[in-house]
Amino acid sequence: MKITVQDIQRAHARIAPYIHRTPILESRALNKIIGCELLFKAENFQKIGAFKARGGCNAVFSMDEASLQKGVVTHSSGNHGAALAWAAALRGAPCTVVMPENAPSVKIAAVQGYGAKVLLCEPTMAARELAVANAIAQQGYTLVHPFDNDLIIAGQGTAALELLEQVDKPVDIIIAPVGGGGLLGGTGIYAKGMSDAQIIGAEPEGAKDTWLGLKAGERLAEYTPNTIADGLRATVGVRNFAAITENVDDILLCSEQRIVEAMRLIWTRLKVIIEPSCAVPLAAIMDQPEQFQGKRVAIILSGGNVDLDALPW
Amino acid sequence: MKITVQDIQRAHARIAPYIHRTPILESRALNKIIGCELLFKAENFQKIGAFKARGGCNAVFSMDEASLQKGVVTHSSGNHGAALAWAAALRGAPCTVVMPENAPSVKIAAVQGYGAKVLLCEPTMAARELAVANAIAQQGYTLVHPFDNDLIIAGQGTAALELLEQVDKPVDIIIAPVGGGGLLGGTGIYAKGMSDAQIIGAEPEGAKDTWLGLKAGERLAEYTPNTIADGLRATVGVRNFAAITENVDDILLCSEQRIVEAMRLIWTRLKVIIEPSCAVPLAAIMDQPEQFQGKRVAIILSGGNVDLDALPW
Repeated sequence: MKITVQDIQRAHARIAPYIHRTPILESRALNKIIGCELLFKAENFQKIGAFKARGGCNAVFSMDEASLQKGVVTHSSGNHGAALAWAAALRGAPCTVVMPENAPSVKIAAVQGYGAKVLLCEPTMAARELAVANAIAQQGYTLVHPFDNDLIIAGQGTAALELLEQVDKPVDIIIAPVGGGGLLGGTGIYAKGMSDAQIIGAEPEGAKDTWLGLKAGERLAEYTPNTIADGLRATVGVRNFAAITENVDDILLCSEQRIVEAMRLIWTRLKVIIEPSCAVPLAAIMDQPEQFQGKRVAIILSGGNVDLDALPW
Repeated sequence: MKITVQDIQRAHARIAPYIHRTPILESRALNKIIGCELLFKAENFQKIGAFKARGGCNAVFSMDEASLQKGVVTHSSGNHGAALAWAAALRGAPCTVVMPENAPSVKIAAVQGYGAKVLLCEPTMAARELAVANAIAQQGYTLVHPFDNDLIIAGQGTAALELLEQVDKPVDIIIAPVGGGGLLGGTGIYAKGMSDAQIIGAEPEGAKDTWLGLKAGERLAEYTPNTIADGLRATVGVRNFAAITENVDDILLCSEQRIVEAMRLIWTRLKVIIEPSCAVPLAAIMDQPEQFQGKRVAIILSGGNVDLDALPW
């Protein structure tokens, strides 16, 4: 069944007591540099440091007590794992997170810090899914997929709901990064339904499976990403690709070098910590500046969990 | 004449159209680590990236047009220079900033970016003051001292005014870093006059001239600081020392290592960029945790202008 604007509104009512209503940040100096009016929805200030708290919370708080107490499991390069661990802890439920061995140590520590059990695996989607399948078969856990899940997509869409409530006048464009497609899928459903804004996804050149899929008219089931944007290394999900195909106007790409440049610009001008994935929308704007000139552009800053000992400069 | 609460209220009315009313940040995770309730007044989000915009703006907007158009001059390790340059540009006035050669390049570039002329000098207070005196003698500029100036102290005190308006219930302690003493002096005058909070200054072990001065009952006129907190390398001013003596309950010291640790904690937990000087209050709390346990403590985060290529870890 298709996810609707109403699903996202219900998700927001469900999770609002637990999440932060994150602020919108602006910088006149940055606007001058980029040549448009930028509004940043600061999900790096969200619980667990990323928008993923929204989806994880919506999934956990939608479950019945009996299933929940058997435990939840997921695979994640980091932020969704922390989100599920955090949300499960809020309801006192056991949680297991399968993580790729190359996930940033700060993200592994965060998941463990919320009391979840971490299982490390090889950094491929196949290895992740196998480890999760084994855990489900052996322990009876419920899978909460990091993105290819209606409740997750609806939860992530609540950032766009707040964004549209918070802006004092309409925006021309809303732009979000795309990895597995939870954020962009939910953003597309809500913002296409409730505004006239153009909805754009931003993807690194080295992880352009969604871009390729949209060109081909079919989701790529397999793709090996290569990007510093560690949050965007997942391949877009089935439900996510469907939501994106229906609601997103365009996917724009950006180079790795531009991601680092955009990340530094946001650190320097907005004075906030963001992770590389989070810089991808601004990088895409900088790589294709023409279509943004003079426009009012909202960017969802997805997260701020970065390893300070492994900065990309 | 003594600076009063009313001077600070007038300063706030004067500068409010130009500055940001910066938010108060909180992190439950950080509170748990430190063992008290911390409220951060985020002046790193202020215009020019530091609270110094308040004093600079108050000084420039208090001047008559004729004096202003002859030009203003100051010496600064960085943030006050940017503040004066920014404020002068708002009124279309010429501005010259004397800066020590070892000031972070990002701060020199910022001053130039606001259209001011930069004169480099040796990194001693004597060399700074000589260069300024020469510029005044030759050009007829008006000096806007970075801290030992009533209008500057009153301007910096407006951060405390906003802080007390923004908190939903009284705080037990307000803590601010002390370098030249503009921020701590203004904070002390306002918060001692308008609240029951204990007022504490935080100073690096390697720049403890104010701490030594209070112990001796007399300001140290000469002191050679050695600290990574580049914003706190100035020696406390005459007016500042008087305001601090009268209104500040205590000065607490902290080690260099703790400054770096506190800076990382704020980056990691609050997801905001702060410069080393800005971490000094939290470092002082961490070095003397007993007196803060269970208290409600407001910290003024002074600024976020840091050189990303020269981080202290």
